[in-house]
Amino acid sequence: MSLANGRHYLAIPGPSVMPDQVLQAMHRAAPNIYSGDLVTMTESIVRDLKVVAGTEHDVAIYIANGHGVWEAALRNIVKAGDRVLVPTVGMFGRGWATMATSLGIDVELMEFAPLEPMDMSRVATRLAEDKNHEIKAVLITHVDTSSSIKTEPRDLRKVLDDTGHPALLGVDCIASLGCDRFEMDAMGVDLMISANQKGLMVPPGVGFVFINDRAAAVRETLSQVSAYWDWKPRVKTEVYYQYFNGTAPTHHLYGLRAALDMILKEGLEAVWHRHAALAKAIWAAVDAWGHGGAMRLNVADPSDRSNAVTAAHLGSPAAVRLRHWLERKAGVTLGIGLGMSTDEDPNGDGFFRFGHMGHVNAHMVLGMLASVEAGMIALDIPHGSGALSAAARVIAAEA
Amino acid sequence: MSLANGRHYLAIPGPSVMPDQVLQAMHRAAPNIYSGDLVTMTESIVRDLKVVAGTEHDVAIYIANGHGVWEAALRNIVKAGDRVLVPTVGMFGRGWATMATSLGIDVELMEFAPLEPMDMSRVATRLAEDKNHEIKAVLITHVDTSSSIKTEPRDLRKVLDDTGHPALLGVDCIASLGCDRFEMDAMGVDLMISANQKGLMVPPGVGFVFINDRAAAVRETLSQVSAYWDWKPRVKTEVYYQYFNGTAPTHHLYGLRAALDMILKEGLEAVWHRHAALAKAIWAAVDAWGHGGAMRLNVADPSDRSNAVTAAHLGSPAAVRLRHWLERKAGVTLGIGLGMSTDEDPNGDGFFRFGHMGHVNAHMVLGMLASVEAGMIALDIPHGSGALSAAARVIAAEA
Amino acid sequence: MSLANGRHYLAIPGPSVMPDQVLQAMHRAAPNIYSGDLVTMTESIVRDLKVVAGTEHDVAIYIANGHGVWEAALRNIVKAGDRVLVPTVGMFGRGWATMATSLGIDVELMEFAPLEPMDMSRVATRLAEDKNHEIKAVLITHVDTSSSIKTEPRDLRKVLDDTGHPALLGVDCIASLGCDRFEMDAMGVDLMISANQKGLMVPPGVGFVFINDRAAAVRETLSQVSAYWDWKPRVKTEVYYQYFNGTAPTHHLYGLRAALDMILKEGLEAVWHRHAALAKAIWAAVDAWGHGGAMRLNVADPSDRSNAVTAAHLGSPAAVRLRHWLERKAGVTLGIGLGMSTDEDPNGDGFFRFGHMGHVNAHMVLGMLASVEAGMIALDIPHGSGALSAAARVIAAEA
Amino acid sequence: MSLANGRHYLAIPGPSVMPDQVLQAMHRAAPNIYSGDLVTMTESIVRDLKVVAGTEHDVAIYIANGHGVWEAALRNIVKAGDRVLVPTVGMFGRGWATMATSLGIDVELMEFAPLEPMDMSRVATRLAEDKNHEIKAVLITHVDTSSSIKTEPRDLRKVLDDTGHPALLGVDCIASLGCDRFEMDAMGVDLMISANQKGLMVPPGVGFVFINDRAAAVRETLSQVSAYWDWKPRVKTEVYYQYFNGTAPTHHLYGLRAALDMILKEGLEAVWHRHAALAKAIWAAVDAWGHGGAMRLNVADPSDRSNAVTAAHLGSPAAVRLRHWLERKAGVTLGIGLGMSTDEDPNGDGFFRFGHMGHVNAHMVLGMLASVEAGMIALDIPHGSGALSAAARVIAAEA
Repeated sequence: MSLANGRHYLAIPGPSVMPDQVLQAMHRAAPNIYSGDLVTMTESIVRDLKVVAGTEHDVAIYIANGHGVWEAALRNIVKAGDRVLVPTVGMFGRGWATMATSLGIDVELMEFAPLEPMDMSRVATRLAEDKNHEIKAVLITHVDTSSSIKTEPRDLRKVLDDTGHPALLGVDCIASLGCDRFEMDAMGVDLMISANQKGLMVPPGVGFVFINDRAAAVRETLSQVSAYWDWKPRVKTEVYYQYFNGTAPTHHLYGLRAALDMILKEGLEAVWHRHAALAKAIWAAVDAWGHGGAMRLNVADPSDRSNAVTAAHLGSPAAVRLRHWLERKAGVTLGIGLGMSTDEDPNGDGFFRFGHMGHVNAHMVLGMLASVEAGMIALDIPHGSGALSAAARVIAAEA
Repeated sequence: MSLANGRHYLAIPGPSVMPDQVLQAMHRAAPNIYSGDLVTMTESIVRDLKVVAGTEHDVAIYIANGHGVWEAALRNIVKAGDRVLVPTVGMFGRGWATMATSLGIDVELMEFAPLEPMDMSRVATRLAEDKNHEIKAVLITHVDTSSSIKTEPRDLRKVLDDTGHPALLGVDCIASLGCDRFEMDAMGVDLMISANQKGLMVPPGVGFVFINDRAAAVRETLSQVSAYWDWKPRVKTEVYYQYFNGTAPTHHLYGLRAALDMILKEGLEAVWHRHAALAKAIWAAVDAWGHGGAMRLNVADPSDRSNAVTAAHLGSPAAVRLRHWLERKAGVTLGIGLGMSTDEDPNGDGFFRFGHMGHVNAHMVLGMLASVEAGMIALDIPHGSGALSAAARVIAAEA
Repeated sequence: MSLANGRHYLAIPGPSVMPDQVLQAMHRAAPNIYSGDLVTMTESIVRDLKVVAGTEHDVAIYIANGHGVWEAALRNIVKAGDRVLVPTVGMFGRGWATMATSLGIDVELMEFAPLEPMDMSRVATRLAEDKNHEIKAVLITHVDTSSSIKTEPRDLRKVLDDTGHPALLGVDCIASLGCDRFEMDAMGVDLMISANQKGLMVPPGVGFVFINDRAAAVRETLSQVSAYWDWKPRVKTEVYYQYFNGTAPTHHLYGLRAALDMILKEGLEAVWHRHAALAKAIWAAVDAWGHGGAMRLNVADPSDRSNAVTAAHLGSPAAVRLRHWLERKAGVTLGIGLGMSTDEDPNGDGFFRFGHMGHVNAHMVLGMLASVEAGMIALDIPHGSGALSAAARVIAAEA
Repeated sequence: MSLANGRHYLAIPGPSVMPDQVLQAMHRAAPNIYSGDLVTMTESIVRDLKVVAGTEHDVAIYIANGHGVWEAALRNIVKAGDRVLVPTVGMFGRGWATMATSLGIDVELMEFAPLEPMDMSRVATRLAEDKNHEIKAVLITHVDTSSSIKTEPRDLRKVLDDTGHPALLGVDCIASLGCDRFEMDAMGVDLMISANQKGLMVPPGVGFVFINDRAAAVRETLSQVSAYWDWKPRVKTEVYYQYFNGTAPTHHLYGLRAALDMILKEGLEAVWHRHAALAKAIWAAVDAWGHGGAMRLNVADPSDRSNAVTAAHLGSPAAVRLRHWLERKAGVTLGIGLGMSTDEDPNGDGFFRFGHMGHVNAHMVLGMLASVEAGMIALDIPHGSGALSAAARVIAAEA
């Protein structure tokens, strides 16, 4: 018998759970796209996106998913033949690199051992070697959604500053914005991309490129940028349609306005704290299960872990069986392992992920953890005891 | 800091959590109320309500809440001066009695000790004394939402049969329909009332009176029933507006259709099993907390407990502080204690209630329990250990 | 081929077209019903309903349709055996009388010739005869939805005052509130009933009884009023559930709040003017069609016509064919004739009604009229020319 | 006083009026994006989009607006330096050409006199001159949304065939798909682009590129296509995320599924007929107003007019005043003139547009026309008589 009928919790690392307020705001007639409320609302969205990103500079909004804004960012800072360095700790850094290669860019991919955080000394060494500054940009992923490793942009900024390398620092915050602390200007980030559907809690379909003056100056050196991806008219808009190079994503904008209202009402610090506390509760539970069982967090050092997504390993076929049980019996969908390959699990079948980004609270996360324990009991998957109490203690301390 | 922002779980004993499908079905233009789909849909609702109630007889649908159908039922079976017996184990039986009194009916209220289930021998004794059969109906509450005591209609049927008393057996299933097993015809119930907003998962505003042939025959003996409450034209409808004595509750009907579809797709046995399993998980947790703390279930014997709502006692002010913490910190709203008064807690401030009716699954209930534990830790409320594991084990065994 | 696919216009006299804002407000999770926003929102609804009704006195809100509040009003002002006078110009006055009869009230029905407005001199004569003041209340329908005749409460007030008769003046404003000018206190009305689903633009399921001090004083003389219908606790509420004698109609309240916001933002005078202008446009068109065809307005004198609904006669089978054509071909549903019987059309098959209440603008009404003309052309129904230009001229003058 | 409060009709040429069914389908929780219903639904959308486009070949779906799919199409068929011919009768052809130029493509823009349809003999002459077949593609706009001129793809196909020129025939059907008859395979079109928000009745944010085998073969000759725009993995999908090169536009897909259901239920022939009939009604009204006033249709020959949008000229400032009056007084928003410049009106201020695409029926169009007449009366704008009757006669004849 199933105990799943009720509100389903989609605990995958994006799209995240959509708040009622967002869906409600999107359920409306199409607006006039030439004048009126849509125009002033878009201006307010630009303003508040910059608050969420911690920047006083510019943002271009694109009708595109995260992969689309990968291309958007690249088109405005490098041309075919230019070199970029992409140090990566997971699948999404490799994805950005693949995108760059498809544009004819000379990509230098720097990979690290599976489940290992980025070793900044390797990056520093490489940048120091690049005496002629052929590397135009260094592109990292703030939170790699596959491995759940977090890379601190500040650390890379320091490397660039220490080596005196002028490359732009570009950061992919698709999985982290609105979850893990990120402050573009304070962290010295030149270019940041993100998207709608994770910490921003809006259905997928809109992406963002945030640009500081250094990035804007690089754009000026490029003679040809496609009209769709060119961020200049989107940022310095004279006529409304330039915001989106054509028809605006009207309903997404209404949803985004509602989501930004929620985030700003709660307060960015409170939003970050909430994600940090919920992540800690998950880590505490997994640690407890691991004493007496096979479940392990991907990332050893808490300072390298994301607060938006947590990847873990349980082994095969237990991980798949557990995910299926949760979906069919308890009303919880966990994320599949993605792009993981280790010596012990070359196919990555034993990995899975907890998504805990955006519209998620103590009740939802504790319910997910208790459901996981129920599933392990039902499936006779060995696990240590005390996990749920440990998670509850974290919540008690952080709330 | 709050960890409550996310989907809030309203765990009160009604209105229950509204499924997206129901709300979506209600978000639509008004229909024609004279012909077309609304008419055939209403016919299908009547048919399926009878399936959910376990009867082959009739149902009248009222635009009214539960108190309204209390009056509706009474108006059709007794007149001012007639006598009814209302054995009651909580606030809602007293409420039905108060309603009857307001109609001029001669009400005999038979109350039992707080937190005690109904003693059928007292009812039997009273019915045996009533040689002249002055008692026209015996009215009970299947599940009293305040005490969470369940009274089995079968037991009262047996008393009536054993004593040969012809009084109608009327049952209030407002809190239980679609949660606790109820089979009108098989249980020998003559009259049953219920409403939209609990196990049926639709916003409040519509109530039901189910009627078997014995009840219908009693109706025939009454010379005057108000046009609004008279169930006859509602049951034997010749023109559409008679279903509702006037304008139909159009949007509620769309919601109800969606809810019935969900219930019938899951299957009534599965729905009952789900509620039973989730209730057991709650009981297991409360029992564990009670070993080492003050939390106690209201109802001692599991066979007297409802699967839709669980009342418990924690003492004052702990119960209130816990409820507030859960609402503000974790995203869970528990029900207040209602109408409870015991020697140890005459004002009932130390009582509270878990609602677990309708659109509720393992994730939601386990999350609620884990949140309660977090709250008790945060507030230094003593409690026994192992509660969450105990609940998880119940879920594992029942899923 | 059909040209109906697009937004359908349900131009029946209720339920009216539901605004997106209202449906959106209803698409939400269930709230806590014991504390919080719902309580303060209900207080604001009570306040603003009184503004819309033009009264500083009280209002009781019922989960019930219009027929339900007919009973509610009667239960609080008369008891079985009391006499009421019901002068009526259509089906809904007869309906209220039937309701009263079902309650054992001694009803004196005063009917007028079909399509004729109320003759106040007949009412005056009858009241003058009633020396002993056996008539406890005079009940009229402000706008009879079947005939579309409007009866001015002021006129009846004058009759009562002139004859010095103390009977309560009760008015049914179900079809008129928020459409036709109505000012309870200024018009000397003692009791007014209305409902959600017409000028108030909310799905059906909630009704209202507005009460002034004279009506409240009469209530005090009654020893027994059923708990559900008793308006006293609903009006002088100490605990929230008393507003609705049980569970609140939560989602309807959210919708009603949104509708009241819309009405008050537009302004009552503007709302009344809009309805008046749209009605005039319809009348102008029908008059033009009538020169050269059979279509006639039911009500000869414009001062006797409602601004919310317009009944007309086209003859049989033309009226039915026209309605079907409009629904299948043009996307417009007109109301059927209801309760009409004249010498020339005893079955009333040749009547139909335009609903133009609530959320309705120039575009919608002009489109309806032009669709009617298209239908008459398509079906070879003779009609005069210039109707649409005439209607457009009215709109031009009134906008 | 305003008569605008009611359902507003946004009669601009896109975004079009969103059906309730579409908005309702989008109001839902995020789905799993790795497996389950979303995957099979996407397959069904691909299948049915091809039905709507009249092709048995392939379609790639992009998260992008119309401008985005302009770039998508170009990236897959030409590289920087390649030549394309863009014959254009309005602003959107020029826009596609500008997009191509921004990609480094050698664009040959062939413009025609304002308000004049495309002269195929000029295109034929140019193609005949291109002996070396340097022109890789000829790109036209099926319906230019600014001028409302329709260009028949068949006519260009004939020119290409007659001259034996192998250039690809690419057609922009953004404004026409689902409105004006279009049959990709039967018309010999190699490449077609469209988008969500017009005839397909879904909020903007998704675009399409339809590809036949000739276009697919040209793609194979290109060595480098950006990962986001490359249509190959989108068309031959092995893993779900390839459909959209990353995260799917989940909620738009639900909306699109609902819209396709509506279109296929009505039937493509019926949809086209409906648009044709409604367009004829508009033309009849404008012609009548023009006899006695300044209003003129942009396009002289009905065979060159679109059934989705109708541009007209009224002169300045009358056109602007009329649009404002309609929006504020009647609840109708007409489209502004866009990109028009003629000798008599170099700034184009006297132009405006009727949008009549997608979810639009006889009632909506007739109401729009009658509102326009009311506005002209109110503003003393001279106009001929009989326009509304003429429109009604068209509807009567075509329905």
